[in-house]
Amino acid sequence: MPARPEPVFRLPVRIYWEDTDAGGIVFYANYLKFFERARTEWLRARGHAQERLRDRERIGFIVTETAVRYLRPARLDDLLDVTVAIVRAGAASLQLAQEAWRTPASGAPERVAEGTIRIGCVELGTYRPVRIPNAILESIR
Amino acid sequence: MPARPEPVFRLPVRIYWEDTDAGGIVFYANYLKFFERARTEWLRARGHAQERLRDRERIGFIVTETAVRYLRPARLDDLLDVTVAIVRAGAASLQLAQEAWRTPASGAPERVAEGTIRIGCVELGTYRPVRIPNAILESIR
Amino acid sequence: MPARPEPVFRLPVRIYWEDTDAGGIVFYANYLKFFERARTEWLRARGHAQERLRDRERIGFIVTETAVRYLRPARLDDLLDVTVAIVRAGAASLQLAQEAWRTPASGAPERVAEGTIRIGCVELGTYRPVRIPNAILESIR
Amino acid sequence: MPARPEPVFRLPVRIYWEDTDAGGIVFYANYLKFFERARTEWLRARGHAQERLRDRERIGFIVTETAVRYLRPARLDDLLDVTVAIVRAGAASLQLAQEAWRTPASGAPERVAEGTIRIGCVELGTYRPVRIPNAILESIR
Repeated sequence: MPARPEPVFRLPVRIYWEDTDAGGIVFYANYLKFFERARTEWLRARGHAQERLRDRERIGFIVTETAVRYLRPARLDDLLDVTVAIVRAGAASLQLAQEAWRTPASGAPERVAEGTIRIGCVELGTYRPVRIPNAILESIR
Repeated sequence: MPARPEPVFRLPVRIYWEDTDAGGIVFYANYLKFFERARTEWLRARGHAQERLRDRERIGFIVTETAVRYLRPARLDDLLDVTVAIVRAGAASLQLAQEAWRTPASGAPERVAEGTIRIGCVELGTYRPVRIPNAILESIR
Repeated sequence: MPARPEPVFRLPVRIYWEDTDAGGIVFYANYLKFFERARTEWLRARGHAQERLRDRERIGFIVTETAVRYLRPARLDDLLDVTVAIVRAGAASLQLAQEAWRTPASGAPERVAEGTIRIGCVELGTYRPVRIPNAILESIR
Repeated sequence: MPARPEPVFRLPVRIYWEDTDAGGIVFYANYLKFFERARTEWLRARGHAQERLRDRERIGFIVTETAVRYLRPARLDDLLDVTVAIVRAGAASLQLAQEAWRTPASGAPERVAEGTIRIGCVELGTYRPVRIPNAILESIR
């Protein structure tokens, strides 16, 4: 696995009952939710609320590909640190590297999950690919 | 609690990992999902697919009130029997009694959860109450 | 409906894609999740992490009853304010009033959902009711 | 992408409100749930209920890696056909190819999502890898 790019954003995510399963750990599908929360807040921190994109520009981002490795179990009450890093920013799509880290009460931070997420910019309704607005591309590059 | 009306529909619902929490049992909020699956299949069995209601008539049902009692824990791999009974069918709203039952390997069926759900018929977009289409009211009364 | 007690805790909850449904609004079952996040943080703010309760004292809180009214639709990117108020603190159970509020860009805050949640203290494994530890009862009364 | 192995199992999965998001389509993270339901029913059809594995043999399967491509939007009321195919059955882990297909009212079936899922067999509690029981390996190979 090649070196991963440096994170450009971090979001703390607390683990609640809703996130766990009968194995006593976080249900793996939920890391996709945590990753998305971090992407959303990363865009918001740069001034881009997705609801506004939908209403004003009639475009939206959709997830087209996800690849995730689940490295260690996370548990109820854990506080994860979820990161966003840019692998590639194309004209109509973004590829992001995302990770979830936990810092135990004692010891070094440990990586809980890591993934690569590809999102595309599409026209609402038709789902046809469109160019990512320049204002967004400029603010995230 | 008054006598509950007789069920008019039953849907089997299997419990998967996604439905459980770290307590080893079904996460209580998920009973609202099971109840809704049963309501949806009950309407479908009477010829009313909700996607069509939305596209053709620009109306939809929304849930306005839920009251649920969680009586016994259900677990991974359990097969529940989820029921729908009509408490009241008004012009623009329905009140339904719903239950989830489990039949153990040995012994009598036991009630796992029970609730009362109120749903309203609304115009899409505005969320203003509208009359339930007669075709639906006639088929469920 | 009688006057509701004053909130003792507030938690901001952001609405993400995961929380919405095809109606374009928050899926109603998710308010139970938001309410629970607020209860968890309320207990944590008083020094009671639930994971510790499970590991050390072998007890846990379970939700036994929920009654929720969904008053207004909430949408993607909304920032809700979720409250906790104590209706009754018994020996082995708590009854809480919880609400979700939204403050629009212009105008007064509006209530989006409100509910009453009953939780019981149980022994892990058996689910038999047990007394709520005094340290908890004293800190929340 | 190399030729994918032939499916050994198919599970119909209906799309409900809970599965959709404000984009009007199935929330992508939920395909991981659909894939898991199909894996669970595939194992069950071969006589292996996971709850029994946990209770009797103190082992469980955990998902260690998921790679999913989301090809077409699925919508409320769609009936998907979710498949399981075996890519590799090792001593302590399985690699599965899974797909979700939809058959439109008119026209040929279309692939909605496809993924590769790696699951490992672990000892409960420690999460250390252990050999998959022979009874399971023999029945799925």
